[in-house]
Amino acid sequence: MLSAISNNEVVVLIEGSVTLPKGFKAGGMHCGIKRKRLDLGFIFSEVPATAAGVYTTNTFQAAPLIVTQESISKENKLQAILVNSGNANACTGEQGIQDAKTMQKEFASMLGIEQYLVGVTSTGVIGELLPMDSIQSGIKQILSKEHEDEMKFKQAILTTDTCTKDVGVQLKVDGKVVSIGGAAKGSGMIHPNMATMLGFVTTDANIGSQDLLVALKEVTNQTFNMITVDGDTSTNDMVLVLANGLADNEVLTKEHPDWSLFVKGLKMVCETLAKKIAKDGEGATKLIEVQVNNAYSVPAASAVGKAIISSNLVKTAIYGTDPNWGRIVSAIGYSGVPVEPNAIEVSIGTFPVFKNGLPCPISEEAVKEYLESENIQIFVDLNQGESCATAWGCDLTYDYVKINASYRT
Amino acid sequence: MLSAISNNEVVVLIEGSVTLPKGFKAGGMHCGIKRKRLDLGFIFSEVPATAAGVYTTNTFQAAPLIVTQESISKENKLQAILVNSGNANACTGEQGIQDAKTMQKEFASMLGIEQYLVGVTSTGVIGELLPMDSIQSGIKQILSKEHEDEMKFKQAILTTDTCTKDVGVQLKVDGKVVSIGGAAKGSGMIHPNMATMLGFVTTDANIGSQDLLVALKEVTNQTFNMITVDGDTSTNDMVLVLANGLADNEVLTKEHPDWSLFVKGLKMVCETLAKKIAKDGEGATKLIEVQVNNAYSVPAASAVGKAIISSNLVKTAIYGTDPNWGRIVSAIGYSGVPVEPNAIEVSIGTFPVFKNGLPCPISEEAVKEYLESENIQIFVDLNQGESCATAWGCDLTYDYVKINASYRT
Repeated sequence: MLSAISNNEVVVLIEGSVTLPKGFKAGGMHCGIKRKRLDLGFIFSEVPATAAGVYTTNTFQAAPLIVTQESISKENKLQAILVNSGNANACTGEQGIQDAKTMQKEFASMLGIEQYLVGVTSTGVIGELLPMDSIQSGIKQILSKEHEDEMKFKQAILTTDTCTKDVGVQLKVDGKVVSIGGAAKGSGMIHPNMATMLGFVTTDANIGSQDLLVALKEVTNQTFNMITVDGDTSTNDMVLVLANGLADNEVLTKEHPDWSLFVKGLKMVCETLAKKIAKDGEGATKLIEVQVNNAYSVPAASAVGKAIISSNLVKTAIYGTDPNWGRIVSAIGYSGVPVEPNAIEVSIGTFPVFKNGLPCPISEEAVKEYLESENIQIFVDLNQGESCATAWGCDLTYDYVKINASYRT
Repeated sequence: MLSAISNNEVVVLIEGSVTLPKGFKAGGMHCGIKRKRLDLGFIFSEVPATAAGVYTTNTFQAAPLIVTQESISKENKLQAILVNSGNANACTGEQGIQDAKTMQKEFASMLGIEQYLVGVTSTGVIGELLPMDSIQSGIKQILSKEHEDEMKFKQAILTTDTCTKDVGVQLKVDGKVVSIGGAAKGSGMIHPNMATMLGFVTTDANIGSQDLLVALKEVTNQTFNMITVDGDTSTNDMVLVLANGLADNEVLTKEHPDWSLFVKGLKMVCETLAKKIAKDGEGATKLIEVQVNNAYSVPAASAVGKAIISSNLVKTAIYGTDPNWGRIVSAIGYSGVPVEPNAIEVSIGTFPVFKNGLPCPISEEAVKEYLESENIQIFVDLNQGESCATAWGCDLTYDYVKINASYRT
């Protein structure tokens, strides 16, 4: 792997997940929350790791988020994360808080570490108490060798996802190889900010907690907060980063010459996971990328991108390979961003469709053929400034309705 | 009809539409924009009527909206309205403006009235020029007796609507019978504020233009702006009210003793049309009504109601008769309104589902059975003030996807 990153300026994408960085292991098992599939997973670092998290903006934060934030706030450290899927432990009152603490305490005891060094997260149905018997019995078994497998971890965190999502990158800091790995789950209730989405990022970089949080926030705003599946923002979701320092680099700060390279690597990890989540949105058949250029500010560019990517009409048109660019223009118009209609240019892939306030002559057939691709790009040029943003989403299909009309039953 | 409104304090709902008030006629025909269905309609008042309008907030206002607003601004009068469906004349640049003016001019000439007394509106596909030959040939024929029929008017304004939408009410002002009638079309791209929605309200009340506009704005905010089908706000939509004064009442002002009764009547007309639009949302099988009570302000109550009614997850759950109230609570949580989670109470129909931060014990079967009704009510009590609001929407179904994946093709 070292040879691949001989250049100090690059970030290399490689096979790997949360166990790519030194000193991390992960695993998963079936403990009985779901009928058959894996539903309990963990990540563990040999040594306590610097931790940073970003959390859902939903007022109803689920119990595990409250407990995990409280724990991180003690020393900005975590050494382990325990995740269950199948039940979100959200809207579960005081009992939910107790259950999250029990998960934390019992897993800490199995690991022989302090309780506050364990982060807990849950995803799944809202408003039902956790089946604590199953979870407690799972906690007792999950550290046995047969369950230690990062593939099982990635599977154990899924809900309606159709595939696991991971990524690994490497870069050099002070000439030393630093690895960053990640795993995530989607796949409905995905909307900025944060979503029914759990993201776990591990790295062996040596970095302080405040700088790690700064980097995470900056990167999250450009990646996880730029994806939407259905406009719903979940009660549960968070991204946690653990940095255990085993790469043995000089501590990364904003003044470190390799700071921007590290942020670039972190962004590559988060962007890859975010796009995988968008592409695997419930019922989705296509990844849609909207690039907005020349806006007067980044928030303006983001708002336009999100309006387009969130439009049910745009999403269904793309599902139906219908080059109905009028819906894109209409979404720009209601985005809340003051725009100059006659200055805007819109392209679908390489096909300009709207310019100077007028439709461009297009070959409907050619655009239709392009819309049959799995990855669709929409470009918007607002011609009013120099800021840009990219948003990702997916098409809206029969299967989205099917999955969500019968999620629990 | 008089006997039905012997009581001066009531508004009576009666059969009727835009031709219920004295002095109005309406009609519709097929001019050739659509393949077969009616696509050109008109309303005409014997005498010039006081006019008021509310318009889409979309930055890309379609050409006919610009032309009609300009005309109304002259004297706050209209005597006729010409509507076409099948083509929205939106994103059509200078040519679109010219086409809208040509429609206006030629219809005015057929009627022998001033051009600025004709309002023009269009609905349908965005970004294609109007087929002016068909429309101009239609304008020459539409005033013939065979096309004069308010049912044909209601049909001519539809796009993907599955049914016509109308309403009539009567009330007494100064002891004189005043009628208010309305017709509207939906049915996708419906979201506050305004929507792919055209609303036409006629009345024989005698009222000044400024007071009419005040009443219309107040009522629109509580009715048309509280419905959503898919969260998309269209480029085209407007509600126009024409008041021709033929009821011969003393001019209505805010000081008139029957002012609030008139506003109540206007609200009944707009609310009925708004609910019919929501219920006939693309692919919808159910009307959903969300009542939010005891918010700290009306905008807060509205924001919570709209967040719930706009949630794809709530909409699919109701389609699937899944009592997944967690999605309702989650939508409240991301509405942007500061709420106290433990103070909130949520009921689906008569079934309390969430209280004191916890799920209520429910009979899943009973709630499921309730969710099979055509009209679903959701009640939210925020317990933090005294303001309330009601929002309306519809479920999200396979047919919504089907209709919108292939709207043009």
